[in-house]
Amino acid sequence: MKRQSIYILLLTLLTCFEVIAQQLSSPDGDVVLEISINSNGTPSYQLFFKDKAVIKSSKLGFTLKESENLDNGFIILDSETSTFDETWKPVWGEESEIRNHYNEMLVKLKQESTGRLMNIRLRVFDEGVGFRYEFPEQPNLGHFIIEDEKTQFAMTGDHTAFWIPGDYDTQEYDYTESRLSEIRELMDKSITENLSQKSFSSTGVQTSLMMKTDDGIYINIHEAALIDYSVLHLELDDENMVFNAWLTPDVQGTKPYMIAPANTPWRTVMVSDDARDILASRMTYNLNDPCVLEDTSWIKPVKYVGVWWEMITGKSSWAYTNDFKAVKLGVTEYGTATPNGTHGATNKRVKELIDFAALHGFDGVLVEGWNVGWEDWFGHSKDYVFDFVTPYPDFNVDEIQAYAKSKGVEMIMHHETSSSVRNYERHLDAAYQFMKDHGYNAVKSGYVGDILPRGENHYSQWMINHYQYAIEKAADYEIMVNAHEAVRPTGIARTYPNLIGNESARGTEYQAFGGSKPNHVTVLPFTRLIGGPMDYTPGIFEMDISKLNPNNNSHVNSTIANQLALYVTMYSPLQMAADLPENYNKFLDAFQFIKDVAVDWDKSVYLEAEPGSYITIARKAKGTNNWFVGNVNGKQTRESNISLDFLDKDKKYTATIYADAKDANYKTNPQAYTIRKMKVTNKTKLSLNSVEGGGYAISIMEE
Amino acid sequence: MKRQSIYILLLTLLTCFEVIAQQLSSPDGDVVLEISINSNGTPSYQLFFKDKAVIKSSKLGFTLKESENLDNGFIILDSETSTFDETWKPVWGEESEIRNHYNEMLVKLKQESTGRLMNIRLRVFDEGVGFRYEFPEQPNLGHFIIEDEKTQFAMTGDHTAFWIPGDYDTQEYDYTESRLSEIRELMDKSITENLSQKSFSSTGVQTSLMMKTDDGIYINIHEAALIDYSVLHLELDDENMVFNAWLTPDVQGTKPYMIAPANTPWRTVMVSDDARDILASRMTYNLNDPCVLEDTSWIKPVKYVGVWWEMITGKSSWAYTNDFKAVKLGVTEYGTATPNGTHGATNKRVKELIDFAALHGFDGVLVEGWNVGWEDWFGHSKDYVFDFVTPYPDFNVDEIQAYAKSKGVEMIMHHETSSSVRNYERHLDAAYQFMKDHGYNAVKSGYVGDILPRGENHYSQWMINHYQYAIEKAADYEIMVNAHEAVRPTGIARTYPNLIGNESARGTEYQAFGGSKPNHVTVLPFTRLIGGPMDYTPGIFEMDISKLNPNNNSHVNSTIANQLALYVTMYSPLQMAADLPENYNKFLDAFQFIKDVAVDWDKSVYLEAEPGSYITIARKAKGTNNWFVGNVNGKQTRESNISLDFLDKDKKYTATIYADAKDANYKTNPQAYTIRKMKVTNKTKLSLNSVEGGGYAISIMEE
Repeated sequence: MKRQSIYILLLTLLTCFEVIAQQLSSPDGDVVLEISINSNGTPSYQLFFKDKAVIKSSKLGFTLKESENLDNGFIILDSETSTFDETWKPVWGEESEIRNHYNEMLVKLKQESTGRLMNIRLRVFDEGVGFRYEFPEQPNLGHFIIEDEKTQFAMTGDHTAFWIPGDYDTQEYDYTESRLSEIRELMDKSITENLSQKSFSSTGVQTSLMMKTDDGIYINIHEAALIDYSVLHLELDDENMVFNAWLTPDVQGTKPYMIAPANTPWRTVMVSDDARDILASRMTYNLNDPCVLEDTSWIKPVKYVGVWWEMITGKSSWAYTNDFKAVKLGVTEYGTATPNGTHGATNKRVKELIDFAALHGFDGVLVEGWNVGWEDWFGHSKDYVFDFVTPYPDFNVDEIQAYAKSKGVEMIMHHETSSSVRNYERHLDAAYQFMKDHGYNAVKSGYVGDILPRGENHYSQWMINHYQYAIEKAADYEIMVNAHEAVRPTGIARTYPNLIGNESARGTEYQAFGGSKPNHVTVLPFTRLIGGPMDYTPGIFEMDISKLNPNNNSHVNSTIANQLALYVTMYSPLQMAADLPENYNKFLDAFQFIKDVAVDWDKSVYLEAEPGSYITIARKAKGTNNWFVGNVNGKQTRESNISLDFLDKDKKYTATIYADAKDANYKTNPQAYTIRKMKVTNKTKLSLNSVEGGGYAISIMEE
Repeated sequence: MKRQSIYILLLTLLTCFEVIAQQLSSPDGDVVLEISINSNGTPSYQLFFKDKAVIKSSKLGFTLKESENLDNGFIILDSETSTFDETWKPVWGEESEIRNHYNEMLVKLKQESTGRLMNIRLRVFDEGVGFRYEFPEQPNLGHFIIEDEKTQFAMTGDHTAFWIPGDYDTQEYDYTESRLSEIRELMDKSITENLSQKSFSSTGVQTSLMMKTDDGIYINIHEAALIDYSVLHLELDDENMVFNAWLTPDVQGTKPYMIAPANTPWRTVMVSDDARDILASRMTYNLNDPCVLEDTSWIKPVKYVGVWWEMITGKSSWAYTNDFKAVKLGVTEYGTATPNGTHGATNKRVKELIDFAALHGFDGVLVEGWNVGWEDWFGHSKDYVFDFVTPYPDFNVDEIQAYAKSKGVEMIMHHETSSSVRNYERHLDAAYQFMKDHGYNAVKSGYVGDILPRGENHYSQWMINHYQYAIEKAADYEIMVNAHEAVRPTGIARTYPNLIGNESARGTEYQAFGGSKPNHVTVLPFTRLIGGPMDYTPGIFEMDISKLNPNNNSHVNSTIANQLALYVTMYSPLQMAADLPENYNKFLDAFQFIKDVAVDWDKSVYLEAEPGSYITIARKAKGTNNWFVGNVNGKQTRESNISLDFLDKDKKYTATIYADAKDANYKTNPQAYTIRKMKVTNKTKLSLNSVEGGGYAISIMEE
């Protein structure tokens, strides 16, 4: 990294306010960050985009527990500026090379009354800014406990926001699109039931938060590199339209315990007048540390099927028996229990899935409900809920391992922790070793229900440390992790690319729990996906869930074409074909797209984007000249006009277009699609119609 | 186990109270337990000793959280009686064979309104009773949460008690001797400072609680087999002199989480008109399950010295440097730190201790402060406080291992957890493996300070499960555990004899923190030692602590003869000679007793005992014909008259008597002792004078 002092520091001394302002611009000059100290010694910042204010003057600092606050009395000791421009290669991703280009300013502050030092490091990219607090090693600050982080994000107006309720335990909410001023009145309605949830304010919302101003500026607030800290939420002062940082507390109501030297995560604000720039940004990854794993050859993107949707829909069960009032592992006798006849993870069913995966070229098969304990797995604050190594009597680990191997398919492990986190940590080594011994290289972990240690929150520092611990230990075993109900990602997969997925949002499962909004998937890439890939588990072809389970009347609010498009628009190195083989077998022509689509990419082109309305993305499959295009459409029928000018001008291609049929309707006629093949070149322009909750998918194969 | 119905059941139907009483007697008939159900269906019990009431009618049952209580509405479905008589051999102990002889009654209760089943199992021994609640597997009771255990112990009068304040985190208190009616007024004074403490009531006391009635009956209340439950405390209703069970809550204020089938620990009441019977009782062990370890050959009693007292007194330090405001393991750079010059655990000092141990025939050397982190180890709710494998720069693990081996001495590991329990569990496998790799077979663990997970208590179910986890995992590694600041023992060492010691009371360290009462050691065998051995760390010869550290004016309230006696009176398979080699070298004649005394026994004879006043015990060293006698004396000078009739009548012995000198005084002249040798036989009678805080020790070697 070259360190240059090439930026003009505007040192403006205004007599009446005693403000000292320093400015830092993005490489292209469009984004300008200004940092100031007022007469009380409180630092603040402002953000401008193309000369317009995006964030008004917003305070920085902390109140501390049992110690003087770190929110006033500061002077600027020094500031250093530098620029950074580097291109790095992710292990997997939306593109094979990522440019990390920013200007940086390190503002060194000293609190005069205490002698304590606090630095603010700011990085300005073309698509936004990141800043964090740094506490260097120093004589006057060792341990400290944050009572509140006082970082503000002062909005310039009553923007439109795509938000979910602030919560210490879950992000599994539908997005609400509203004015900021409407959040308070819409809060109650937006809080839908979850097995673990704790909201904190009627104007509290989660990050990443996507907004749009009336003059067409897109703003996204999130955080990057959340390590050893608690999750950032935002609480809106809706009189002044100022978001205040709201950290997730621990069981005693306290916020992060800090020891200098330490840094906070980065607070990020993306800004653009083109929504596509938000999707294309790699700022969140760039603010994370480079990969620390020496060997990453064992990390591979995975397309998989599994024994899962049948349990989610209620067609079959995770549990093996209905005999038990409660289960005590090691005491409860499974050998003599009566099988309930609905258990999903049987040898027979798993072999069918392995056969299906092998037939259609999938990499892996996930099996949930393979291990004892599911008869009594949540709702009782149970400590010893699973041991992660003992299979049900009708699931033969060795037999399945051998069968999968014979078919060239990898088995994917499932570790539901039921949020009994001490228990999981106690079993983690044995569980990971069991995986290695039985040929499993990837695990889907789950954190359903309230956390044990009791009273802890899914998003408190205690739990952030746990998720990180599980990822790092998995890396020791060369295991890939896909953590569900864990904290939403903040780009940590750059540093630990074995974190190949997360749920941490309202996934496809909710389509079997009453349904999600038809435009849900036009919001997620602007929010949840900012920090990393989501194991959204797309690919549902049978939208009428009662066809799987007569007692479940849920409806999947999506067309089949929309489901196909998700493999492109919802970027993930881990993609499931979530529906049952039986349902795919009815639509093998559409299923072909899922078989063809890649899960790792050389390049991504963001063709169209408007949060809540539509997203169209083209991606070039890694190491090939084949492209895949996906369009998801929101709340109203729309014509998508795209040019294939991203194709190589010297090459010829065959495109297969999977689109909504004219009469497709996500509610009444979701399985109506058309498939057509055509020759295309980089001159081709396409005009395609997508219905509400619909879309299209295109495979473009080099001839 | 033979099952016999040999006891007459008195089925007394009293019209007005509808009481159904059933009686069960001890094998010798002196102890009688009566169980009844009143007209509300509330079970209760009474206890008699030699026809006198010891416990008046006392209720049994539970209130539950979010469920109907289990304290009324019961009927007796059935009751079964049986007798049991077996002799078993402990791996280590006060005697090589233990008789387990009791009559048992299993009373099967059903709550009519709910159909729930709860059994009460009662065992009556010659020296007292144990009873527990059992919840069999059943359709109507799975998970349940205890709000309060409603077990009562109704006293027959205002007894004299030896008590320490009820506390969720520590037992490190001096005992107060008072009438029950005086507890309330003496409570504040009895609560002295501790690094972690939480008292709950002005009449709350801990078990084991020793009492004496005005007519000379000794009563001891404790618990046995505390597994997967929280610690039993007692809260006195001092109007009615009824002790109510008070369980230690978890962070959310709730009591144990239960899953049927489950048992509570045993609630024990020992009773006798001879205080020696309390000391001689093995009831607590007998109520625990037999040993579950197949191979116990690696478990060996240990006499040891260590680098410890010099830190406790402040003569040297655990910490290596004074450079750091705070320590972050893995970040803090020890290599370049300035040694503080007071670090105890240096290669040089440890080798001196190894030399001293080898010279005098000790088995082991404990070293505290060998591993990085001690500069910042408590008081900040720190999570990652130690890693248990990284030594300080001046402690070379391999070099010390080789040196100790060359001298035939075992090194004893030290794991201070600082109560950061998640951190300890995360490192436990690696820490134990590190021990095995470096020749350590025993660990002293510590739990100083407030528990992490934050808000948990040392004595809550969460932590009870942790201590048990550490013991069981240690057994997997063939490691012996001596846990300090952990829960006080309840006889679990029968089942897991690798639990060779605990602190869990006010140990010798307090003699360097201001001093303990001179009669403290005449109480501990009646209280703390009821559940298992204590690593009391006796053997202090220099009572003026300022001689070690000019800044510490504490005084050890004991004579040297008293210190010697402790090796006999404070039974433990783990005995430290805690003072510095330099101090022992000044009194090598007295030190000879510590060198000679055994740590494992074939037989123990309780010659004299009165809680708070004196204890005299003779023990036969395992596999020899040598005996050791110890007398500790309490608050006033006393003549101890003993007969050596326990000696083999056909053998001749040489006794060496280490006694208080005439002018000995625990305060002003503690180092005044006499040593005399004499021939003795089983006809010998001795009359020895012990001063306040004094005593004597005798080695009796077969000629």
